[in-house]
Amino acid sequence: MNTCIDCLPCFFRQALDAVRRASSDTELHERVMREVSGWIHDADLSEPPPLMAQRLHHFLREQTGISDPYLEAKNRDNTLALSLLPELRKRVESSSDPFRLVVRLAIAGNQIDLGPKSSMSADEVVNSVRRVEEQPFEGDIELFKRFSEQSHRILYIADNAGEIVLDRLLVEMLDPAKVTVTVRGGAVINDATMADAQTAGLCEICEVISNGSDVPGTILEVCTPEFRNAFDSSDMIISKGQGNFETLSDNSRSICFLFKVKCPVIAEKIGLKLGTQALLF
Amino acid sequence: MNTCIDCLPCFFRQALDAVRRASSDTELHERVMREVSGWIHDADLSEPPPLMAQRLHHFLREQTGISDPYLEAKNRDNTLALSLLPELRKRVESSSDPFRLVVRLAIAGNQIDLGPKSSMSADEVVNSVRRVEEQPFEGDIELFKRFSEQSHRILYIADNAGEIVLDRLLVEMLDPAKVTVTVRGGAVINDATMADAQTAGLCEICEVISNGSDVPGTILEVCTPEFRNAFDSSDMIISKGQGNFETLSDNSRSICFLFKVKCPVIAEKIGLKLGTQALLF
Repeated sequence: MNTCIDCLPCFFRQALDAVRRASSDTELHERVMREVSGWIHDADLSEPPPLMAQRLHHFLREQTGISDPYLEAKNRDNTLALSLLPELRKRVESSSDPFRLVVRLAIAGNQIDLGPKSSMSADEVVNSVRRVEEQPFEGDIELFKRFSEQSHRILYIADNAGEIVLDRLLVEMLDPAKVTVTVRGGAVINDATMADAQTAGLCEICEVISNGSDVPGTILEVCTPEFRNAFDSSDMIISKGQGNFETLSDNSRSICFLFKVKCPVIAEKIGLKLGTQALLF
Repeated sequence: MNTCIDCLPCFFRQALDAVRRASSDTELHERVMREVSGWIHDADLSEPPPLMAQRLHHFLREQTGISDPYLEAKNRDNTLALSLLPELRKRVESSSDPFRLVVRLAIAGNQIDLGPKSSMSADEVVNSVRRVEEQPFEGDIELFKRFSEQSHRILYIADNAGEIVLDRLLVEMLDPAKVTVTVRGGAVINDATMADAQTAGLCEICEVISNGSDVPGTILEVCTPEFRNAFDSSDMIISKGQGNFETLSDNSRSICFLFKVKCPVIAEKIGLKLGTQALLF
């Protein structure tokens, strides 16, 4: 998916947010914003949006020496999601359609995304999860379920910290023995890395691999051979979040995308309203 | 007031909004966004934000030949505000504190601002006006009233189309004979020009002059001698809106600023929450 000019103001806002998280030096803030303006001036809009985010986070790391400015936010969101797990498990147990509920909870977790939005309060996260059934939903969960039952190897491309804790409920339901969860190879925005998969307890129940890349999405060409092999050899691919959608939606494989629609550009592209829980094949 | 780095992403969004209003040519949209990125890269942040907006609108005019991309929005908002006038007049007549109400209605009209926000629905405008007394308010209306009663020449620096219709209620209450209303000398964003003052019926009840400038604010150095003379010889100056606040808040004159707080930078600068109706001396 190309970068749209609507992505540019949004990316500019994201850059300001990221540099403020990385440093309190206001001269650096200004320097970064001027640098990013220069990139936008010369931007290759045929590239997907996550590539520019990767460039920003490399530049910030180089300028500040801080490798993971979102670490505190990620830890907070993991802790918050873990604290919700017991009540969610009870809800799933007593649900008339537990599969549907865990799919919707996994998508609700995708609310925890510090790319399109600069901050996310604990209340917003809790509301998104607790009131999951009130949110608009678009997709065929029965088809998704049948496809997963028929599949022997499922690749589950995770997206963000916090969210990955709720993904665990869906992985458990899919059958952990046939699922490989993948995480980013390095810190970028609040995307989940191996540390978050461990915190979520996923490493204890299924295979978890890194994709070897710190793009906040999935650019196969820069992922490890191990990841590409898992991608090619899986009979079902589940992709979480907008960044993975932006980078994988043109892929020739049939991929099942699960995400919450949080940005007007994607909303228009897929013809769904902002806030919709989307399950797209 | 200097430009803050938080103004840069906002300005970038405003540029995209403006070029889309001026033309449907997507190549032009991209060209303008790249051009604006170049300006931001080299921006002089000691200038007030409205100067960059003026530059943008000059550039758009040069590129598209369209002198007033907000004309339709301005006409719509004038018509909408005029349609509300009869019910508002009745409300003022039956109010226990009519002066307070017209001040608050004039500030509520400042909601109609297409600078900080790309669009504004009729419902938002109507709600802002009809539910004016539910909005948080900060300022000393009694002091403002006494000051206006003691003044012989009042300069009323208008801000936006639509809003200027509601300003009329306050001008009538202040005594039109001693009020001079000023408007922009040329079209910029949805700022009110002489045509809007005429539509609002202000030209029939008081003196209205142009400031001769198309900055969406008031930079005295580029205003006409007539405007500067009116500014210097008035014993009370009322300034509407954020753009005028951004350009006049460092002026040595005691100015009464009336505006709705719509941007986080200004909210932080004056220590008031977003959405507050502000009356500041």
